[in-house]
Amino acid sequence: MSSLEFTHRRKNPLTGDWVLVSPHRNNRPWSGATESGSSEQLPSYDDNCPLCPGNERASDTSNPDYKDTFVFKNDFGALVSDNENVVEQDTPEFIKADVARGECRVICFSPDHSKTLPELSKTEIQKVIDTWQSNYTELSKQYSCVHVFENKGAIMGCSQPHPHGQVWAHDHMSTEIAVENDNLAAYQHKTNKNLLAEYIEFEQDNKERVIFSNEHWLVVVPYWAAWPFETLLIAKDDVRHMGQLTVQQKASLSEALQILTTKYDNVFNCSFPYSMGWHSAPGNLGDDSHWRLHAHFYPPLLRSATVKKHMVGYEMLAESQRDLTAETAANILKSASSTHYKKGL
Amino acid sequence: MSSLEFTHRRKNPLTGDWVLVSPHRNNRPWSGATESGSSEQLPSYDDNCPLCPGNERASDTSNPDYKDTFVFKNDFGALVSDNENVVEQDTPEFIKADVARGECRVICFSPDHSKTLPELSKTEIQKVIDTWQSNYTELSKQYSCVHVFENKGAIMGCSQPHPHGQVWAHDHMSTEIAVENDNLAAYQHKTNKNLLAEYIEFEQDNKERVIFSNEHWLVVVPYWAAWPFETLLIAKDDVRHMGQLTVQQKASLSEALQILTTKYDNVFNCSFPYSMGWHSAPGNLGDDSHWRLHAHFYPPLLRSATVKKHMVGYEMLAESQRDLTAETAANILKSASSTHYKKGL
Ligand SMILES: O=P(O)(O)O[C@H]1O[C@H](CO)[C@@H](O)[C@H](O)[C@H]1O
Ligand SMILES: O=P(O)(O)O[C@H]1O[C@H](CO)[C@@H](O)[C@H](O)[C@H]1O
Repeated sequence: MSSLEFTHRRKNPLTGDWVLVSPHRNNRPWSGATESGSSEQLPSYDDNCPLCPGNERASDTSNPDYKDTFVFKNDFGALVSDNENVVEQDTPEFIKADVARGECRVICFSPDHSKTLPELSKTEIQKVIDTWQSNYTELSKQYSCVHVFENKGAIMGCSQPHPHGQVWAHDHMSTEIAVENDNLAAYQHKTNKNLLAEYIEFEQDNKERVIFSNEHWLVVVPYWAAWPFETLLIAKDDVRHMGQLTVQQKASLSEALQILTTKYDNVFNCSFPYSMGWHSAPGNLGDDSHWRLHAHFYPPLLRSATVKKHMVGYEMLAESQRDLTAETAANILKSASSTHYKKGL
Repeated sequence: MSSLEFTHRRKNPLTGDWVLVSPHRNNRPWSGATESGSSEQLPSYDDNCPLCPGNERASDTSNPDYKDTFVFKNDFGALVSDNENVVEQDTPEFIKADVARGECRVICFSPDHSKTLPELSKTEIQKVIDTWQSNYTELSKQYSCVHVFENKGAIMGCSQPHPHGQVWAHDHMSTEIAVENDNLAAYQHKTNKNLLAEYIEFEQDNKERVIFSNEHWLVVVPYWAAWPFETLLIAKDDVRHMGQLTVQQKASLSEALQILTTKYDNVFNCSFPYSMGWHSAPGNLGDDSHWRLHAHFYPPLLRSATVKKHMVGYEMLAESQRDLTAETAANILKSASSTHYKKGL
């Protein structure tokens, strides 16, 4: 199926949501908000940064003089483990609440304040992956739903430029995991097949939307992408959660992450902001054979380092809307170089 | 049920989504992005503005010398009516697309470039409501789903400061309307009652989250609010879509809108950005007795005119998260004055 160059909608099979695609709208003029581009070169060490090695953090503790990754409990986490409260259950159906119990951690990717993921070496990225995995494994013993994610760039609410991500773990299935779980299970129930395994085959045959592929991973602009340069990174093997990744799969992942994030930075020659995160099978399922480990990348930039797509009125009240098709975005990402633009500077 | 001051989740009965509430997190420090406050006073007429009376728009046509509201077809609309294409239907289940046909219009609220909704008189606001209604009525003859909305402020992707909103109309039910329709219908099927009618009664008895109430309208911070100062504006009478509003209901609405948007501006003494929009029963239902006309207001500001809530990593990959409870937000909005701060300047 080739690119559709007229107004249409596409359905996201993981969420059930549709996205409105308006390819004819690519050329409209823009006089709205622009974001400040973050081209300034940061120092390798900043004595005001609470994530830099040796510095003091908010809660009177000091960071160790760490050499690769460093993990600490978020001093202002949205979840706390120590929560023995109960919520009244005898309420009308439209007034439903539940206690939430969990833990939030911060993962520093590198001691170097100035670096971002694509600027790390493959070995350094593998260290990040190892740290994601060990934290996932540890927390999933205690909590059934573990979210490993990264907000990159001030535009994505990232409060510290120091390269870092987060892990939030909790007992309950979050909304997105519950919805994906339902859709993945329904597909498997109906077809006896794994949705993402089938989707990988489809995209590999089709090639149009594939950005990168190696032994263990596929990076694709999903057919149903909502954000302009949204991508999906999927394990090719039958891996259901982060805890199961082997050494080979992690080495292969480090290459995929380096190439994808480098291509992102090269689209507009800037540190490309995004929110990314992993979706693993929740721990309390019993049979999780309908799952496949994957990561979503949601980058907001649309047409330059300073013009982003706003998911606002229509998008919040109706459904996501995009101008550029998934296929056009895939072409741009495919032609972007795999060598980081800063290396040529 | 009084405010829950520990970490918990609340369920949105209109969407089925949950929101994570972390009241203990209100005091965390903030060193992330701040937005530029828009305190500059705009002129009443700007000769570069494509929405001002008499000016030329992109497509070689000139605006009339309009005196209250003015409507035109969006020259760069995301939907077009003239779309006879077809989409191949013989595809795998995870590759679903459909043609979309529709129309996008822009509604200027006032000829005065410098004004925003709360700065208009009640009579002027009523003119806006009349215009919403007449466009709704006209378009719903042709399209089953008509979205009337406003993006206010550059931070909400609004590309022109001139006061205006939009109408997007189409054949298909958008994702949010389809989801609300399912949830409203399921509730009515189960209880034989109208969800929003019941909810109004509950909030009126409870009072805690009610911001404003008059003969025909209730403004409430919904129990399940995701955005810091999110509100829901609900018709008290059995009105299912915008086309049904009577003269009395519209007069009463103009008061509710004026007070709500004035209170918003007074929270941080700034033009409070938001996306707002109406949810009407779609036109192709037959029985729509489970519907109740309502508007959602989604404002992004969190703690000042320049610090917004970012719905990013965790929120995109798991579920919405908030610090301030709905009850605290309601208290702040209740205590905000109903006289616009600029009137005292
Ligand atoms: O049509 P406008 O005001 O130029 O555009 C704005 O509203 C639209 C509808 O919510 C969005 O799709 C755009 O991303 C936003 O910038
Ligand atoms: O925890 P941080 O990085 O300070 O905060 C950022 O990420 C969180 C998780 O996505 C969001 O809830 C916050 O709105 C955002 O600013």
